Amino acid sequence: MAKNRDEGTVTDPGKGSQTREQIVTQALHIAAYKGLEALTIGTLAKKLKMSKSGLFLHFGSKENLEAAVVERAGELFFSHVLLPAEEDGLEGIEQVWTLCDHWLDFVEKGILPGGYFFTGAFFLCARQDGAIPRAVNQIMRQWLNALEETLDAARRVGDIHTAIDSRQTALELNGLLLGVQCSYLMDHKDHIQARSVILTKLGSLATDKIPVGAFASLKAWRKYLEGRHE
Amino acid sequence: MAKNRDEGTVTDPGKGSQTREQIVTQALHIAAYKGLEALTIGTLAKKLKMSKSGLFLHFGSKENLEAAVVERAGELFFSHVLLPAEEDGLEGIEQVWTLCDHWLDFVEKGILPGGYFFTGAFFLCARQDGAIPRAVNQIMRQWLNALEETLDAARRVGDIHTAIDSRQTALELNGLLLGVQCSYLMDHKDHIQARSVILTKLGSLATDKIPVGAFASLKAWRKYLEGRHE
Repeated sequence: MAKNRDEGTVTDPGKGSQTREQIVTQALHIAAYKGLEALTIGTLAKKLKMSKSGLFLHFGSKENLEAAVVERAGELFFSHVLLPAEEDGLEGIEQVWTLCDHWLDFVEKGILPGGYFFTGAFFLCARQDGAIPRAVNQIMRQWLNALEETLDAARRVGDIHTAIDSRQTALELNGLLLGVQCSYLMDHKDHIQARSVILTKLGSLATDKIPVGAFASLKAWRKYLEGRHE
Repeated sequence: MAKNRDEGTVTDPGKGSQTREQIVTQALHIAAYKGLEALTIGTLAKKLKMSKSGLFLHFGSKENLEAAVVERAGELFFSHVLLPAEEDGLEGIEQVWTLCDHWLDFVEKGILPGGYFFTGAFFLCARQDGAIPRAVNQIMRQWLNALEETLDAARRVGDIHTAIDSRQTALELNGLLLGVQCSYLMDHKDHIQARSVILTKLGSLATDKIPVGAFASLKAWRKYLEGRHE
């Protein structure tokens, strides 16, 4: 692993990186559960049984630590949500579906504990200045852009109607996901219903290239997707 | 004003209440802008040029202060969003519209500064235990219930289709609002587009009791609503 410029006076780069990883993991756990504002060097030092000065050696400031936490959270989000949609052989409406499906997976599997780290952090810090709000905003932007791009691509291959406004539709899909997440957090319902909401929305965008029956149920939809790969 | 049991040893109830109001106002400003976790007795005392012990006399604990802040935020939300929809003469689909319209107003007018206090707080603390997360959850629940009840009522007067699942539709409308708010915070777009998204959704729910033309534009919609009151 590359020596990180924030490691300060740590002399063994390998060991320093490892400790740093552990610190970020623990810090992310706190931040995802209680928000970035709850993350203090003091609480973290106690959890890790380290001295505050030891922590400062690794990060130099609370802001650097927060930046590392947001970066790690972003990496997890990208690898679990955005990357699967870029898999070979996925195209058109299936790619849009894969993004939404994995977004829900990410939440269901509790990859990040707590409510929904990015949504909470985004809404709370959207109007604040500084490196951290910008980083959080950037992750949200990349997510919306990915949705928009796959919608554009789905239009190009004729899966969805040409008249559809991709940006607007990305926003609506994101809204539906936030709405079902909200309801999930409140009522602890399962996400099957959530996927049906997304499927109905996709059905309203689709051209007659895709048989109407494919949108009748999740089972029918999964069967249709299998057929696309045969 | 009634003497509050949290006022402790403050001897003049009137003055105590007034000071308490000022404290809560300032605390809400901090919490709405930076989240409840950012609210510390120390920061607040500095802002208000009061002593920490003076603040403790009024609230006893940080948790009591947070509870008062969430309560005040809830009151603002109810008076600006839920109450207008209960006005005499409003019924059916117009009541559903009024709720969504005022939700957007609440955000546009910056009644609470920052991103969107309840959404941020809700997502961040939905999986936490305690009085504050429960209070935040309760406000979100009351909002969703209000949406659901007006949808039920709209169905009863024949404005929307009988087959519509009110709970599911309330969740979808809330999701659309969160989605447009997200986009607004990111791109600083105006909310006219947001209202069009809501109007299109309402159009998809409406029976033929309502002329299709009413959903063609916001202008047409407002004209149609005027006609309902003539």
